[in-house]
Amino acid sequence: MKTYINPTPEQWSALAKRQTVPTADLNETVKSIFNDIQKNGSTAVKKYTNYFDGISIENVAISTAEIEKAVAEIPTDLKNAIQIAAENIKRFHQSQKEIPTKIETTSGVFCWRESRAIETVGIYIPGGTAPLFSSVLMLAIPAKIAGCKNIILCSPPDKTGNINPAILYAAQLTGVTQIYKVGGIQAIAAMTLGTDEIPKVDKLFGPGNQYVTAAKQYSQQLGLAIDLPAGPSELLVIADDTCEPEFVASDLLSQAEHGGDSQVILVTNSEAIVSKVSSAIEKQKAFLPRQSVVEKALENSRALVFQSIQTGIEFSNFYAPEHLILAIEDAENKISLIENAGSVFIGNYSCESAGDYASGTNHTLPTNGYAKNYSGVSLDSFVKKITFQKLASKGLQNLGPTIELMAAAEQLDAHKNAVSIRLKKLQNG
Amino acid sequence: MKTYINPTPEQWSALAKRQTVPTADLNETVKSIFNDIQKNGSTAVKKYTNYFDGISIENVAISTAEIEKAVAEIPTDLKNAIQIAAENIKRFHQSQKEIPTKIETTSGVFCWRESRAIETVGIYIPGGTAPLFSSVLMLAIPAKIAGCKNIILCSPPDKTGNINPAILYAAQLTGVTQIYKVGGIQAIAAMTLGTDEIPKVDKLFGPGNQYVTAAKQYSQQLGLAIDLPAGPSELLVIADDTCEPEFVASDLLSQAEHGGDSQVILVTNSEAIVSKVSSAIEKQKAFLPRQSVVEKALENSRALVFQSIQTGIEFSNFYAPEHLILAIEDAENKISLIENAGSVFIGNYSCESAGDYASGTNHTLPTNGYAKNYSGVSLDSFVKKITFQKLASKGLQNLGPTIELMAAAEQLDAHKNAVSIRLKKLQNG
Repeated sequence: MKTYINPTPEQWSALAKRQTVPTADLNETVKSIFNDIQKNGSTAVKKYTNYFDGISIENVAISTAEIEKAVAEIPTDLKNAIQIAAENIKRFHQSQKEIPTKIETTSGVFCWRESRAIETVGIYIPGGTAPLFSSVLMLAIPAKIAGCKNIILCSPPDKTGNINPAILYAAQLTGVTQIYKVGGIQAIAAMTLGTDEIPKVDKLFGPGNQYVTAAKQYSQQLGLAIDLPAGPSELLVIADDTCEPEFVASDLLSQAEHGGDSQVILVTNSEAIVSKVSSAIEKQKAFLPRQSVVEKALENSRALVFQSIQTGIEFSNFYAPEHLILAIEDAENKISLIENAGSVFIGNYSCESAGDYASGTNHTLPTNGYAKNYSGVSLDSFVKKITFQKLASKGLQNLGPTIELMAAAEQLDAHKNAVSIRLKKLQNG
Repeated sequence: MKTYINPTPEQWSALAKRQTVPTADLNETVKSIFNDIQKNGSTAVKKYTNYFDGISIENVAISTAEIEKAVAEIPTDLKNAIQIAAENIKRFHQSQKEIPTKIETTSGVFCWRESRAIETVGIYIPGGTAPLFSSVLMLAIPAKIAGCKNIILCSPPDKTGNINPAILYAAQLTGVTQIYKVGGIQAIAAMTLGTDEIPKVDKLFGPGNQYVTAAKQYSQQLGLAIDLPAGPSELLVIADDTCEPEFVASDLLSQAEHGGDSQVILVTNSEAIVSKVSSAIEKQKAFLPRQSVVEKALENSRALVFQSIQTGIEFSNFYAPEHLILAIEDAENKISLIENAGSVFIGNYSCESAGDYASGTNHTLPTNGYAKNYSGVSLDSFVKKITFQKLASKGLQNLGPTIELMAAAEQLDAHKNAVSIRLKKLQNG
């Protein structure tokens, strides 16, 4: 970790820079796969599965038998752990339900809003060595609470044509309605366009590599909603001398192991902490299996020493981290200063891993500075909030003249007339 | 209005089709203007104002004197009307504030979320003959309630180099912090990139023509958030024989006058209502100044007669209208059937104009079928919701083993270690 002592505000932009992953050159590939799947449906999907995943899949839909087999395979202690995490995630997301409140804005004029589930949502879960069943929990649980009718999950098959059993277990536990063995651009295209086998969805969720990201961007251009713009994962820790350097080191390493493009930032008011954390990193790193990934991520990572924690928080707001750990004195009373962050972890015992898996908060969060203008995934991500209004005749009589005046001033006479014709009727009737 | 009697489900897709406005061919224009403004800042902005608006603007920022002049020009009755509308909009959007609730998901594990304002928002208000000051209210009022620090407004200058006084009045009333005489692609580019005169914003709001729409799409690709994907305005009215055909006609016409690309749909269970509404349209149309616009919009418009209102509601959910009027018996008890709509108007006295101007609901709504996967603008649009979590040492002891198991199963050892190292400390300490 390169260390910067009292960086000036002019340096902040450079210090807040993320590694950017170029995706523009994938656009042509994405478009051609979408066009092929638009034209040739599941035949094209299977062709790309064969090409990219190196396996020929006859039945893309996961069968009940396959799910039962997976459920049987998962060790009981892991099942229990997944169930505990699921309960916490459920509890927290259920608390995000909005109770409609009718507001009488003018006497006789009632306004309120009600949530309705997005009918069909698509969840993408990457394949690879580490089965991200935790992302299944984070996306399917709020979808279920929202009341989404169809919860579609796509994940690439491995070399034996299967999806990791932990993913299947999490999917059946949380109420995913259909699971397909399809990955990459072809999965996103199938869920965007619909095929004879895979339904068209209204909104797409879930992590993915740069191909999946580029495909999701293209889906958005075609009219689908997506969860969040994507970027590599990141963590910023603000630490003062009340922190435990070993804990801080372990958190920075946990972020670093996500990928070589991950970024970890240590912000502190003490050079001594930087050196303590650095030496703890060296010690702990030696025992980690993903050492080369961790080392690559640490190359993009920084330790920033400011004169005060206050300035450190200002930098953090400027950086807008996906994850923010506050390992500082009286941390809970500092949170009103936090303006931009995806999820915040307060105090020495709130490690990022807790939120990644089991505390109950969602781990699908804005990266790459998007915490300035986007929220992480929540129950809100799976509903639309529809506004309703009811004007009693008295309400229109009270508010009608206001509407008539404004419509006339905007030169929208038919808008005015819709009011006038009603007021006239009320006057005569 | 072309009438369809009992259209079969196979016909629904065609009947729900909107006029699509092609924007792809604007992409090159948009990109070149963005690049020029990126390189040449306000000089380029002024060049495009000169080119597109036919006026040379020295000071793009509106001065206090210009605002004072505008305030003095607005008639008192219009001022009063705008203030009444503003109060209602304020009341309804204030009711959307979320009160943070701490949830103890596991003993010693506390999760909650808090809203933070998006720091800098940009509001675009089109120019032209009709000054859309109502859109200023709909966007600046929730921005102010959210606590956005910088509320930037751009609107094109007219031929005399001014912005309509009603827009300026609404802007100063609602607390817009800076107003600039810039329109079109150059306004969106300036707010996206920032110039020496116009600040870079975090999120863009507001209506616009196809140039503005294409520019906002490009801004989104560059990392800005935008309010909603755009499309022409639309209204669907569901009416049974408790409706007032004259009222329904006036509502359809009020939507039709928005633009030739507007769409209005009448859904009913009675052919008699179609003919009554049609003849009321003919009568009322004769008195409207925007007759040619109205007639163009009516060409894309449809009357659909279903065997039951129930089926009509199903069609409406399929169509997902921006505005939905329920002019049916016992309308309020039918709203649980409404799945997809931007804003719903209940009963004979709830005309769309009320929501367009003054009832309190927002008029920035999803068009073009986006009501299936997007909500209209609300207080939520101006904030991020940050999740917070605090694990007491007891909380981590309770939940730690769960996290360790899950992290190990995802092969993320550093994630596991962040927990283990803390549990060890607690055990020893």
